[in-house]
Amino acid sequence: MDLGNRVDFYIGLSLAVSSSAFIGGSFILKKKGLLRLASKGSMRAGQGGHAYLKEWLWWAGLISMGVGEAANFAAYAFAPATLVTPLGALSVLVSAVLSTYFLNERLNIHGKVGCLLCILGSTVMVIHAPQEEEVASLTAMAEKLKDPGFIVFAVCVVGSSLVLIFAVAPRFGQKNVLVYILICSVIGSLSVSCVKGLGIGIKELFAGTAVLKEPLFWSLVICLVICISVQINYLNRALDIFNTSIVTPIYYVFFTTSVMACSAILFKEWLRMTVDGVVGTISGFLTIILGIFLLHAFKDIPFHWNSLPLYLRKDPQDISLHQQPYVTLPSHDLETEGEAGLSKSGHLNGGWRQHQSTA
Amino acid sequence: MDLGNRVDFYIGLSLAVSSSAFIGGSFILKKKGLLRLASKGSMRAGQGGHAYLKEWLWWAGLISMGVGEAANFAAYAFAPATLVTPLGALSVLVSAVLSTYFLNERLNIHGKVGCLLCILGSTVMVIHAPQEEEVASLTAMAEKLKDPGFIVFAVCVVGSSLVLIFAVAPRFGQKNVLVYILICSVIGSLSVSCVKGLGIGIKELFAGTAVLKEPLFWSLVICLVICISVQINYLNRALDIFNTSIVTPIYYVFFTTSVMACSAILFKEWLRMTVDGVVGTISGFLTIILGIFLLHAFKDIPFHWNSLPLYLRKDPQDISLHQQPYVTLPSHDLETEGEAGLSKSGHLNGGWRQHQSTA
Repeated sequence: MDLGNRVDFYIGLSLAVSSSAFIGGSFILKKKGLLRLASKGSMRAGQGGHAYLKEWLWWAGLISMGVGEAANFAAYAFAPATLVTPLGALSVLVSAVLSTYFLNERLNIHGKVGCLLCILGSTVMVIHAPQEEEVASLTAMAEKLKDPGFIVFAVCVVGSSLVLIFAVAPRFGQKNVLVYILICSVIGSLSVSCVKGLGIGIKELFAGTAVLKEPLFWSLVICLVICISVQINYLNRALDIFNTSIVTPIYYVFFTTSVMACSAILFKEWLRMTVDGVVGTISGFLTIILGIFLLHAFKDIPFHWNSLPLYLRKDPQDISLHQQPYVTLPSHDLETEGEAGLSKSGHLNGGWRQHQSTA
Repeated sequence: MDLGNRVDFYIGLSLAVSSSAFIGGSFILKKKGLLRLASKGSMRAGQGGHAYLKEWLWWAGLISMGVGEAANFAAYAFAPATLVTPLGALSVLVSAVLSTYFLNERLNIHGKVGCLLCILGSTVMVIHAPQEEEVASLTAMAEKLKDPGFIVFAVCVVGSSLVLIFAVAPRFGQKNVLVYILICSVIGSLSVSCVKGLGIGIKELFAGTAVLKEPLFWSLVICLVICISVQINYLNRALDIFNTSIVTPIYYVFFTTSVMACSAILFKEWLRMTVDGVVGTISGFLTIILGIFLLHAFKDIPFHWNSLPLYLRKDPQDISLHQQPYVTLPSHDLETEGEAGLSKSGHLNGGWRQHQSTA
């Protein structure tokens, strides 16, 4: 691998990671802005107010989001999609970690383990990602797009999306969370291919090539606009009907899998990877999925502090580690936690501790 | 890397994996044997009976354990300790998986995620393990043992163990779970070095070298016997005072870390690894630790089925995935689970389902 490729790889990697940091941070900035407005007594966004337009924190969030998306776009021009897409998981992580500091939302033990797993999985994926750039110019990209394998894939994607949109979605879209997410995910693989092609085109533009005269460049722009419109439409529908904590992890898994499949067919990068590399990439991806699962699945789980092994408890009176610790609890503790389980706050340790101190 | 080394690596890997399978299976066979005796009404082992000696399942368990330990010993002769020791985690996994089939002990969702993480972490460690054998003969081993770095390490190990045994253990051993485990772990790093040396010696013996005349061989034997006696003594003390589910994961983490540190100093294998290899090995190891943590920490956690996101529930009436699913629960469900939380069975979903069907 020559030096230019290696530099490109690290540029792409840094762009992908900073993109996740900006996107993850933007959620916190926006939410903090809205909370500040609510505490001032302004009309809330959910009620149709527009006071948030005067709040600088909300604007900071919006700008941070824009910067993040731009960095993500640019990352695709430098590093393989197999690397850039899965690193999107880090934005989930950043927003989870920042919200414990700035919004006082506590991460439970599952959340912490999930965060660590996202980092570990991403690390493993990064060290195994193919470092060589697959295409260097728009002409090379055009060659790849004409490959029979990719044409078959693209036809399948468009065909299955049409079936999902017109036959399945009207009947099952409101009931089954997978329908809308599947549409977004398969179309997403085409968006990423377009972004990749456009990124390379823009790189060439800066290098002085007359890219704007090529019809392929403009076809990619049109294709990207169509794909992203479809994606945003169905993602919003999914988020409208189902919980964010259900949609986010499923969407991540389907979208990333779909992009990796598309990237494998379009660039055949797996063929140049060693067996170890393929195994490592898959292991890292599965580790990230498990991490995201832990971050989301147990968000609202009632947390029976007393039933954890004793070495996980922090209270000084719980430090003794002798056998059979489970029998001496007063029963009202459990009942209180049972009730807390009904609240949607998700800060059940906090609730429990409060109860203890007022008792 | 030449072919001989590669063959050795795969022999060592297979031995390490099958060792874990035998050791993990042995727990199940023994427990199944003891349960069968209990159902026949014989006097139980805990009460001083010896009926288990007539039970073939118990013997099968004992033999399986012996085969497993022998395979583990042999694995060290073929593959690096940095690979063989962490793969011990697979025995925890095997016994967890087999007990769901043969002992009807249900794995909760944390247990399943933990198992997957152990497999993923082990996979990542295996693909990054140094494949070259560090020493090929007892003479080469003697050279390594004379290295000043290793001598300093060994003196530190023996010194700190003596301090722990004579100064710390009498005062804090009964209160703090870490004391006995630390003694076992640091001494364990010396045991593994001895096992490694002896394994190589035995390999040479089969090849016709007069190893039995070398004083180093017999010094290693004596050293191994002393180290293992100390280890067994303090591990039993730890298991006697504290819960197995506390001791097992902590012991795994400390023991493996200590063996990897010793192996790094003795064979300097990290110096020949690439940065990617080191990062991958550490990521895999941390993933295994998190997996073991999940397998053990939440064993007895009361599991509020109703508070899981809906896509994780299996009951047909729970399939609807619409927003705000948490408000319509009858409160007696939670109370029942609260009570179940006090039992030590760990099969709380099962308990809940039973309640539902009898209601």
